Amino acid sequence: MPPHQKADDQRSGCPINLTLEALGDRWSLIVIRDIMFGNRRHFRELMAGSQEGIASNILASRLKALVENGLLSKAEDPSHKQKLTYSLTEKAIQLVPMLAVMGAWGRRYMPVTRELAVRAELLEDGGPELWSRLMDELRVQHLGAPPPPEGLTVFRQLREAYEAACAQEK
Amino acid sequence: MPPHQKADDQRSGCPINLTLEALGDRWSLIVIRDIMFGNRRHFRELMAGSQEGIASNILASRLKALVENGLLSKAEDPSHKQKLTYSLTEKAIQLVPMLAVMGAWGRRYMPVTRELAVRAELLEDGGPELWSRLMDELRVQHLGAPPPPEGLTVFRQLREAYEAACAQEK
Repeated sequence: MPPHQKADDQRSGCPINLTLEALGDRWSLIVIRDIMFGNRRHFRELMAGSQEGIASNILASRLKALVENGLLSKAEDPSHKQKLTYSLTEKAIQLVPMLAVMGAWGRRYMPVTRELAVRAELLEDGGPELWSRLMDELRVQHLGAPPPPEGLTVFRQLREAYEAACAQEK
Repeated sequence: MPPHQKADDQRSGCPINLTLEALGDRWSLIVIRDIMFGNRRHFRELMAGSQEGIASNILASRLKALVENGLLSKAEDPSHKQKLTYSLTEKAIQLVPMLAVMGAWGRRYMPVTRELAVRAELLEDGGPELWSRLMDELRVQHLGAPPPPEGLTVFRQLREAYEAACAQEK
């Protein structure tokens, strides 16, 4: 398709519109967020850990659409043939800056809960340099890239900050 | 409301989730985009210029919700009492970085049309420094801030690049 022609099923060829169309409804980004920051790779984990209480039929349909749109890949778990493991693709890993700026805006204008906002704060403070390191670490976890010598430091920093904030709430 | 409690009608207090909830469906960001980059301030202009062919009932409902959620303000036009002028609030102006990273992602992964992608390219290349200047200019256009001595240069640069790309397509 020539770059200046739009497909008939797209509303326009505007990059913002197409991004909104690709991500579909808001559940898609919620699922990507949970795979990305929670490293939840299986249907059951995504259901059980859902802060938003996603319904199983919604989760199933969004996982299917995300695979079809090239944002997730799926593979059979070597130990259980029935169990599928979902991984982010490079296309989904490149959503890190979008999720970071969405989190920053939400933290400024919405009534966020503290333990769910600490990771957004770290991402905002770290800026593009931290996002880039996180993206490299996600390539290790999801695309099988060789691990950096220092390990998954950004991923661990985000998880530890979240766990510490959760512990304080109790 | 204490910051660690969520309102009953919100799915969770996660900043990313709340941002998605605040912006509602994808039409909301499309309307904000047209007001922001096209400076379309009236219902009629927003309808007539819509690249995505927004339906009038959808446009009316989204404008209403955006005003209720504090993303737009509305005022009677001094010359026509029936005519309402919509303006971005500071909360909406702060969406510039989100729209910029959405455009950058769309340009990389989606079949964008060239004339609709030139502004996204300029925003991506300009980075946070350009976004910040654009936000200052939007404060002049929408919040009545005093204009900078050099005028609305980023807004004009984006508009001229778009018009030049449109002219080439013809």
